[in-house]
Amino acid sequence: MFRHTKLLQFEAKPERPDPVYARKLQELIGGAYGEMTVTMQYLFQGWNCRMEGKYKDLIMDTATEEIGHVEMLATMVARLLEGAPSTVTAEAVKDPVMAAVIGGMDPQQAIVAGGGAMPQNSQGVPWIGSYIVASGNLLADFRANAAAEAQGRLQTARLYNMTDDPGVKEMLRFNLARDTVHQKQWLAAIEDLKADGLESSLAPTALFDEENQDHNNTVWHLSDGPDGSKGGWSFGAEGLEYLMKPEPLGGPGTAPKPDPALYGTYAPPPVGGATALRE
Amino acid sequence: MFRHTKLLQFEAKPERPDPVYARKLQELIGGAYGEMTVTMQYLFQGWNCRMEGKYKDLIMDTATEEIGHVEMLATMVARLLEGAPSTVTAEAVKDPVMAAVIGGMDPQQAIVAGGGAMPQNSQGVPWIGSYIVASGNLLADFRANAAAEAQGRLQTARLYNMTDDPGVKEMLRFNLARDTVHQKQWLAAIEDLKADGLESSLAPTALFDEENQDHNNTVWHLSDGPDGSKGGWSFGAEGLEYLMKPEPLGGPGTAPKPDPALYGTYAPPPVGGATALRE
Amino acid sequence: MFRHTKLLQFEAKPERPDPVYARKLQELIGGAYGEMTVTMQYLFQGWNCRMEGKYKDLIMDTATEEIGHVEMLATMVARLLEGAPSTVTAEAVKDPVMAAVIGGMDPQQAIVAGGGAMPQNSQGVPWIGSYIVASGNLLADFRANAAAEAQGRLQTARLYNMTDDPGVKEMLRFNLARDTVHQKQWLAAIEDLKADGLESSLAPTALFDEENQDHNNTVWHLSDGPDGSKGGWSFGAEGLEYLMKPEPLGGPGTAPKPDPALYGTYAPPPVGGATALRE
Amino acid sequence: MFRHTKLLQFEAKPERPDPVYARKLQELIGGAYGEMTVTMQYLFQGWNCRMEGKYKDLIMDTATEEIGHVEMLATMVARLLEGAPSTVTAEAVKDPVMAAVIGGMDPQQAIVAGGGAMPQNSQGVPWIGSYIVASGNLLADFRANAAAEAQGRLQTARLYNMTDDPGVKEMLRFNLARDTVHQKQWLAAIEDLKADGLESSLAPTALFDEENQDHNNTVWHLSDGPDGSKGGWSFGAEGLEYLMKPEPLGGPGTAPKPDPALYGTYAPPPVGGATALRE
Amino acid sequence: MFRHTKLLQFEAKPERPDPVYARKLQELIGGAYGEMTVTMQYLFQGWNCRMEGKYKDLIMDTATEEIGHVEMLATMVARLLEGAPSTVTAEAVKDPVMAAVIGGMDPQQAIVAGGGAMPQNSQGVPWIGSYIVASGNLLADFRANAAAEAQGRLQTARLYNMTDDPGVKEMLRFNLARDTVHQKQWLAAIEDLKADGLESSLAPTALFDEENQDHNNTVWHLSDGPDGSKGGWSFGAEGLEYLMKPEPLGGPGTAPKPDPALYGTYAPPPVGGATALRE
Amino acid sequence: MFRHTKLLQFEAKPERPDPVYARKLQELIGGAYGEMTVTMQYLFQGWNCRMEGKYKDLIMDTATEEIGHVEMLATMVARLLEGAPSTVTAEAVKDPVMAAVIGGMDPQQAIVAGGGAMPQNSQGVPWIGSYIVASGNLLADFRANAAAEAQGRLQTARLYNMTDDPGVKEMLRFNLARDTVHQKQWLAAIEDLKADGLESSLAPTALFDEENQDHNNTVWHLSDGPDGSKGGWSFGAEGLEYLMKPEPLGGPGTAPKPDPALYGTYAPPPVGGATALRE
Repeated sequence: MFRHTKLLQFEAKPERPDPVYARKLQELIGGAYGEMTVTMQYLFQGWNCRMEGKYKDLIMDTATEEIGHVEMLATMVARLLEGAPSTVTAEAVKDPVMAAVIGGMDPQQAIVAGGGAMPQNSQGVPWIGSYIVASGNLLADFRANAAAEAQGRLQTARLYNMTDDPGVKEMLRFNLARDTVHQKQWLAAIEDLKADGLESSLAPTALFDEENQDHNNTVWHLSDGPDGSKGGWSFGAEGLEYLMKPEPLGGPGTAPKPDPALYGTYAPPPVGGATALRE
Repeated sequence: MFRHTKLLQFEAKPERPDPVYARKLQELIGGAYGEMTVTMQYLFQGWNCRMEGKYKDLIMDTATEEIGHVEMLATMVARLLEGAPSTVTAEAVKDPVMAAVIGGMDPQQAIVAGGGAMPQNSQGVPWIGSYIVASGNLLADFRANAAAEAQGRLQTARLYNMTDDPGVKEMLRFNLARDTVHQKQWLAAIEDLKADGLESSLAPTALFDEENQDHNNTVWHLSDGPDGSKGGWSFGAEGLEYLMKPEPLGGPGTAPKPDPALYGTYAPPPVGGATALRE
Repeated sequence: MFRHTKLLQFEAKPERPDPVYARKLQELIGGAYGEMTVTMQYLFQGWNCRMEGKYKDLIMDTATEEIGHVEMLATMVARLLEGAPSTVTAEAVKDPVMAAVIGGMDPQQAIVAGGGAMPQNSQGVPWIGSYIVASGNLLADFRANAAAEAQGRLQTARLYNMTDDPGVKEMLRFNLARDTVHQKQWLAAIEDLKADGLESSLAPTALFDEENQDHNNTVWHLSDGPDGSKGGWSFGAEGLEYLMKPEPLGGPGTAPKPDPALYGTYAPPPVGGATALRE
Repeated sequence: MFRHTKLLQFEAKPERPDPVYARKLQELIGGAYGEMTVTMQYLFQGWNCRMEGKYKDLIMDTATEEIGHVEMLATMVARLLEGAPSTVTAEAVKDPVMAAVIGGMDPQQAIVAGGGAMPQNSQGVPWIGSYIVASGNLLADFRANAAAEAQGRLQTARLYNMTDDPGVKEMLRFNLARDTVHQKQWLAAIEDLKADGLESSLAPTALFDEENQDHNNTVWHLSDGPDGSKGGWSFGAEGLEYLMKPEPLGGPGTAPKPDPALYGTYAPPPVGGATALRE
Repeated sequence: MFRHTKLLQFEAKPERPDPVYARKLQELIGGAYGEMTVTMQYLFQGWNCRMEGKYKDLIMDTATEEIGHVEMLATMVARLLEGAPSTVTAEAVKDPVMAAVIGGMDPQQAIVAGGGAMPQNSQGVPWIGSYIVASGNLLADFRANAAAEAQGRLQTARLYNMTDDPGVKEMLRFNLARDTVHQKQWLAAIEDLKADGLESSLAPTALFDEENQDHNNTVWHLSDGPDGSKGGWSFGAEGLEYLMKPEPLGGPGTAPKPDPALYGTYAPPPVGGATALRE
Repeated sequence: MFRHTKLLQFEAKPERPDPVYARKLQELIGGAYGEMTVTMQYLFQGWNCRMEGKYKDLIMDTATEEIGHVEMLATMVARLLEGAPSTVTAEAVKDPVMAAVIGGMDPQQAIVAGGGAMPQNSQGVPWIGSYIVASGNLLADFRANAAAEAQGRLQTARLYNMTDDPGVKEMLRFNLARDTVHQKQWLAAIEDLKADGLESSLAPTALFDEENQDHNNTVWHLSDGPDGSKGGWSFGAEGLEYLMKPEPLGGPGTAPKPDPALYGTYAPPPVGGATALRE
């Protein structure tokens, strides 16, 4: 069960409205690597965690924090939209600056949300549940979490350069810091998984003996040029080697004769095996 | 530019049809962590790579291999569907085994694809471009790649246990091996990025001095119970510490007064600042 | 900012696993009227509320409760999936009961979530941000909320009849009760909006004088049969009347001549205005 | 079965093109509360109505009218796009006004539709079937309908303020009026449902005795601040009361031990019940 | 504007319920090539048609018919669901036949629609606006229409073989016939476009002189094996020839140096142009 | 299996960046008729082709070429974005030209992709698997292919007029040419299917005798005005005739009495069959 305080985790007010930037901030709210994603990803991972204790608690700590990040960003968006042009566009576009602002705004923030944030990315695409993963395997999930925080920090950093409003930048400096913490913590938690003997460095820690041993160490050279062979992966890192001239191992890929009731186009191959249709 | 050989990268034929399993294999084709995802993720990363050389070549090598994995799986699905029931369901459900098969099948594999694979997951949800990321920052992307291969190998391992068909298992042993290789190579490539001085261990390698230094090392305790403090992240791993009693740093989150032209519900706050509506 | 306790708002354990039912419960988690929807709808409405005080607080009270409902349901799903068949399907389908179970399961709960809940509906369609609305107009939004709780309670009631597991039924009896409370409270809050003079009975409380006065009271008879005229709406309820023989008020709908650079198919109309192409 | 007349239900021609506004109007065509939504929602409700007579006929009357509203709006969009810039953008952006127009346009209206409307919202997101509901329970559905018309009228009112073109405003005055009628009629129809003894004021009119009687009247205080207790819902409206200090009723939410074949991360809890991993 | 009669265009009642088949019929309602698609595709094409007369009228004739097809199918689905199991699944799955039925049903037809059709395909994926096209170019659109009717008839034919209910088959015989008519009419209309001198055989009838004349007649051999050269397209059909040994015409695809503010991974190429990172 | 060369199939460099145009080009990459669509459509058709030989080889030849077209366009987008404004928007919008550019840009190309292409259309909607079809029936599929190439060429032609950059135009002249080739080849392949006796002119070539013979030749007049009768389809083309006064063939569409456990609103019809609710 959850409880809410009205106080924001961190707060900074913009000096002036900036509706174009309000649209861009939607990426951090409802984009594939925005705060809705990490909120839901961590909540489902926590609920789906199979082992009580430090891992589950860390996940739920972080999940709970992330709900508050959506709150911070949604509040900032509403403030950035204060005084945004909501009136006659035909008139407005005669003033170039106003016009440019209108061109760059998210029209739904006005028409649908009445001047507030939407659960969508900077292009207006709604947030979708398939952005998240909660597999029950903590190594696989923590790696996904570290990746999500990396992409999230990267997008925050890009957005940091797109404003010079001191209030917005102050908030983003907090967000950058939290993305740093969360990257670190998932990397640290992966180390704990190994130290605790729960997982190895590859996920899942299973079926290594059953997998095809002839093909679990070779990087295949399938795009021309020599440089693919110049990385650590060609010189034994992780036990890998570079296969310079790989060849297909299988025969032709063929789909079976169709079921007549499904009306796939088909003619029996001619005697001798060659195709002979109107040659 | 690409070229295609009809020969499959690896091939194994199923001993018998299994349309229920053919539906499940869709997860590896068009699921969030299926082969369409890694194909497109690596292609876009390669095309968007900002630096010629070993990294770009490795990405393109792998991208090109993955197209062939979609091919292998699509071919396997068609073979598993050979002889799948395509006729009268009302009759079929009188035979319990046949009925169960029909219940577990993907109806679109018959109705739409005529007995073949679809670009969708095991629940029939179409593959979507937002599954992938290609940010131009190689550390962020390689971490996402290692995560994707981990989730992919995990799903493959789960599916491996859901069949006892020797042909299917043989193919999956190859897929497991390739997912192992690809996890290893992205981890190795991350080490190369560091060794080459291109990125650090956190993405992006930027703005560390500008981010809020008071909050870039503390894990906040926001979910009850003491166990969150028992991991390495509480004992200095990655320089982190656990903040046992965190408090909100901001004031109340408030949205500004609405623009009248947007008809948000609003009454001015009463004199004295307290809300006084019909109390 | 939010805080989390590990204790569930309400808890009841299933007597036995039921993976087919676990799939159905997904509708209450990630369906259009599931708990993810009311969680996010109320959160965004609260953050977007333009007036501090009782309305905003009620919204946030309820939003915070709903996060805990997703938690209750996700936990229930994991428990219902305990011992669900995760192994060889070809073998399993020889046992009709087992086979039926497999046919009715959500394959992603096993393959993707490792035996847990997914952020999606009972057909596997991911939850999507466009399920929610937060317009800033409280009358419009509370009406949407009352509607959502009505659909939610209806679906819960249907699901209540689809199980006889005492534990599941006990949980659903709680959910039914909460859906009752929430329907009541949004209806009560609409009365408060009127009593407080903030909104009328139609949303938005604006432009009534500007709207077309000839057409704001007539129900148009556009589907044959006489019964449309037999409801209260034909006898003055809400000031309405039934227009038995409505006629179009406009001329033909025509799109303008295309821009040549857009290559719309076009020929100038013949002299005299009639179409004369190869008649 | 349906029939079509070329005459529009209502028609008003714009005085001048306005491609930026043409994009915004897409919200009323293909947004979550646009005309496609009410068209399809009412059609499916009518087809799914379980009782011949006045309710079904009212639904079908309205559904049929709404198809004509999509037509009116699509025609208006085509007219607003007449003469929209379809040529060289690099040149155009040198003229600030033209540039602003281009920035604010929906590029697909030109590239895909050749200067016409698209089945999508103002951000280009395609209309989707999950916007609609047709549950068979008329109380639940009429409440959803009243909510949809409220959101629709709200968005129309916002758009009304964003143009000063007399023709567009004239059309929108008609749309506002129809949204008023439809709100009224669904509210009137809800009263009829009660008067006819078919439904009560809560949906569904069932399981009230079975639902948990301890928890079907209390609003839980889960977000801080005292104002949540100041509304009618705290003073007996709808029989409700406000629970100022609610506590969780359940124990810890725990997911069961994972199936080994699914590779969830797991270690057995240590003797004594405490977690002991590397503490 | 539209009008509706309660009478179905064609009607046939099923002899018995068949909920598994009711799910499959969803493909014809809300699938990519179902009746919702052709309804909306033709409506938008008609509203977007740039030329009054026979083409526009044919489009609107057909669009109006298709709405009635959705109606026929939705009615059939409701009838096929009569008496479908809506109760205790755990009990039901003990009866293999009942269990199989439950496994094969669309759970949302019961839980969401109360025993009726949904605006979605046979896998539960909601209908989406991007299934349709209305480009304003009649040749391009009529070809898309002929293709849609072909896929639609194919799916109808496959479904025809999946039932032996005389009532269902009678309805499908009508649907097959209408799909035949509509294929024919769009092919006939394409011939009219040519005879009227409005379009040629390729869309759009423009820029043929500007397109690259060296590459507008050659089929490139990019997949191994000799058979690609054995079709009419290699022997002058449509003026085509088969290019047996095509070579890339461009240089390496390279993305430019990244903007530093976007943090793409980058190192300047070493002097001499070769990549020299840790070689 | 596939192989990749770094050389582009065709290459032309833009003379100058044009980020507004870079957004528009997304339509050709990830739109419904963009290169990702034809790539995946042809790949799945090839893998699902039931007959070895010239048809399958042609499909795979073309599929392989199309992957390279995505590559060409993604490379072009990265080049057009070189130097695109990635900095302070509030400042930038003071310069009208810069502001206009920002308004017309795809913000995700900067924030998510770091200055590169995304797998989405010009409005930011992600590419989706349901854009493609691979039915196994070659007539149905080749017709869909010819339609896709027609829409693709049309969009390319529209985009050709929206730039005057010689490099971009040179590339598009190649794309136009390839779209011409591919239209021609699918039309030629349809002729081969007929010449080879594999399919007729309507898909599928089946059930013509079983379909309802009374209704497989009549175009129904359901939209007013006389012009629908003036096309070839009214004068015997394809054996069709125009039915000027069609009437419904069925009775009223009615849904059955609801299952009480599903709570559909219902009252038994009164004795005598008339509805008598509060009349």
